[in-house]
Amino acid sequence: MALVVQKYGGSSVADADGLARVARRIVATRAAGHDVAVVVSAMGDTTDDLLDLTREITRKPTARELDMLLTAGERISMALLAMAIHELGHPATSFTGVQAGLRTNDEFGRARILDVAPDRIRSVLDDGGVAIVAGFQGGSADDDVTTLGRGGSDTTAVALAAALDADVCEVLTDVDGLFSADPRVVSLARQLPHLSTEEALELSAHGAKVLHLRSIEFARRYDVPLHVRSSFTDLPGTWVSDDPRVVPQRPVPHKNQEDPMEEPRIRGLAHSHDQSKLTVVNVPDVPGRAAAIFAVITDAVESLDMIGQTHTASDTGVIDFSFALPVEDAHKAVEALQARQSELGFTAVTRDDSVGKLSVVGSGMRSSPEVPATLFRALSAAGITVHLLATSEIRLSVVVEGSQLDAATQAVHTAFGLDVELDEDGVPSDGSPRALAHAGSGR
Amino acid sequence: MALVVQKYGGSSVADADGLARVARRIVATRAAGHDVAVVVSAMGDTTDDLLDLTREITRKPTARELDMLLTAGERISMALLAMAIHELGHPATSFTGVQAGLRTNDEFGRARILDVAPDRIRSVLDDGGVAIVAGFQGGSADDDVTTLGRGGSDTTAVALAAALDADVCEVLTDVDGLFSADPRVVSLARQLPHLSTEEALELSAHGAKVLHLRSIEFARRYDVPLHVRSSFTDLPGTWVSDDPRVVPQRPVPHKNQEDPMEEPRIRGLAHSHDQSKLTVVNVPDVPGRAAAIFAVITDAVESLDMIGQTHTASDTGVIDFSFALPVEDAHKAVEALQARQSELGFTAVTRDDSVGKLSVVGSGMRSSPEVPATLFRALSAAGITVHLLATSEIRLSVVVEGSQLDAATQAVHTAFGLDVELDEDGVPSDGSPRALAHAGSGR
Repeated sequence: MALVVQKYGGSSVADADGLARVARRIVATRAAGHDVAVVVSAMGDTTDDLLDLTREITRKPTARELDMLLTAGERISMALLAMAIHELGHPATSFTGVQAGLRTNDEFGRARILDVAPDRIRSVLDDGGVAIVAGFQGGSADDDVTTLGRGGSDTTAVALAAALDADVCEVLTDVDGLFSADPRVVSLARQLPHLSTEEALELSAHGAKVLHLRSIEFARRYDVPLHVRSSFTDLPGTWVSDDPRVVPQRPVPHKNQEDPMEEPRIRGLAHSHDQSKLTVVNVPDVPGRAAAIFAVITDAVESLDMIGQTHTASDTGVIDFSFALPVEDAHKAVEALQARQSELGFTAVTRDDSVGKLSVVGSGMRSSPEVPATLFRALSAAGITVHLLATSEIRLSVVVEGSQLDAATQAVHTAFGLDVELDEDGVPSDGSPRALAHAGSGR
Repeated sequence: MALVVQKYGGSSVADADGLARVARRIVATRAAGHDVAVVVSAMGDTTDDLLDLTREITRKPTARELDMLLTAGERISMALLAMAIHELGHPATSFTGVQAGLRTNDEFGRARILDVAPDRIRSVLDDGGVAIVAGFQGGSADDDVTTLGRGGSDTTAVALAAALDADVCEVLTDVDGLFSADPRVVSLARQLPHLSTEEALELSAHGAKVLHLRSIEFARRYDVPLHVRSSFTDLPGTWVSDDPRVVPQRPVPHKNQEDPMEEPRIRGLAHSHDQSKLTVVNVPDVPGRAAAIFAVITDAVESLDMIGQTHTASDTGVIDFSFALPVEDAHKAVEALQARQSELGFTAVTRDDSVGKLSVVGSGMRSSPEVPATLFRALSAAGITVHLLATSEIRLSVVVEGSQLDAATQAVHTAFGLDVELDEDGVPSDGSPRALAHAGSGR
């Protein structure tokens, strides 16, 4: 008997049939002897429909009123889900974020969770009922309704699981789990049975869309085991945790690796098309100028996900700096740089939105020259040029032409021996399930 | 400078254009120097759409979850309305029933208002902003979301106006006000510039659908002047109040009335097709038996709106009782009577759903034999038989064949001199506006 928090995304509750299917799954979990608290997103396209309506009214909606509007979506899905569970003869009670004790700051549209006081949730669970909580929303100290922004429902689920000291937070979605690469791009991608939180963070930060970064950070900080599964199947999914009781510390070695303790272990690839490359042209090559340019950019953009490289032009006394960053941040970075142009002394900022980023995630990345060597060899053999490069302790990222990104991902997946082996019937020889789809799970 | 509470029904905010039109009207009221608090219903068909979705899930939705679901409707309309006002450059803030301090008991689906503590509303008004409040909803002492049932948004508006000590509660709807009869039935119905609360109560209780009974009762108890107007025009509408500063005590006499103080003054007609006639057959004619039968029925049905009459069969020692009551209550009354059949000693209960009720409302009804005489003469001339009759201090109702109800209404309207006079261009000679439509205003 465990306490399970389940999160269902919008695609899992898109219509009455979806709600009924989710209700059956919840009741089955109860029947297996577990306490169940559920976090649910808005149904299917509800949020988009409300945003369309908003655009008919105004081009610049007020943040407070937009939050008030959008939180109607979960109110609808959670009440209907409670009814669907009742229809199966089981007690269930729905709660708004405020009712569930989810307190946030007052940054409408991207509120941060301050505290979760799930007294009412615990009371329902103690009485044997299913508690259903609206994802994505909370309440401020001023008694206003707030939303948590992107990845909000996942974050609600993990925060609730932490507050309830749940045994697991199940993220039920429309894919089978996390994969060694996006199965829509790499047909031989293998499903990963378990990942450390750090690995999951790097994969999600650099392109994998199944789990939102913020929910993994929350899970890591509060030691909540995450279990990503399909809401449409009973396949085993992917566990994300650093707890050795949940996730084995030494994953099964890949076929072409001896896997001694010091060898690098590549877990998977993430890729992202939504990248811009900025180049600051003709920066005077004087001490501190590079640092000043970095400082301007890091001040301007929220998520610092950049790759810098200098191209020194010989004997001119000027250098070029190139950065890659999410395309949604490029505009802000360009504006910030141009505002300081005379002070920084460069002649122009160019922007190229046609690039993409491929990231290899695993352990032992920095200490092993073998990983970049394998990576560059594979890209070179495929005729792909690397524009920029960056590394962290467990990640190595390259920026390439956007049109070559998928080919790069396939080549590198094969080069690192990540491809799943198929038997003569086309069934994976390791018995792992294959992806049915690989899409984001909404908010 | 006054404090105005405005209530807009679902038909007034059915789409983005409607919301923009309502926003302009609100801003114009502000510009005229008034403080404005707004109560808004769910947009157009939102509630019906949510109920359709519910029926796909379950045939017996839980009352608590149904309230949670339906309150999403106002959340959407009020947030969008606030944005539409912002778009015109004016501050506006939306509030749920709970946020507006509307406290109710916990009877989900038909909660009663216990108290309104509009601190946040007052604060917004004090700062010069428009406060927008979700109609139809409140919160229980257990922190659950409740709905007020039929007429809920009107009731919210009047309760808020009372709590704020507003100068007027404007009910903005899709008709021009209250009329001397339903203009869809009586083409020469005249719009009534003012009514006492008692007259408005009788008209609404017996068929007029513009104002909900409950909101008039609230307005009467807390001395809130009601002003029913079209949200589509600037026509003067109908005032409902007993305050002589708001409503003249002596309305303008009709053309065929001398209007001395003691003469009856007919204000208008209400009609209702949704009536059933029950007949309890062969009741033993013993003392107390009639009272016992009345008691059974009044226990069984919520709204006591019945007309009883006895038809004594000579020399048999038994009598028949007939009642008229709303068709939605007929089933309950029949069941209650049949459960006590042996004790009450009657032989059968018959039910006839094909009847209708016409009510004449005005003052001096009981003391003047002239009113029933005029009524019966008009009906007789039109070949219409009266099944049942009931009177109150200011009302006289007759039950007739449902198929003859419209003809009865037209004949009686003319007989009491209520028809508006038209000049040769077809324009009302009294300058009163004419009805564009005459429909209910939703919740």
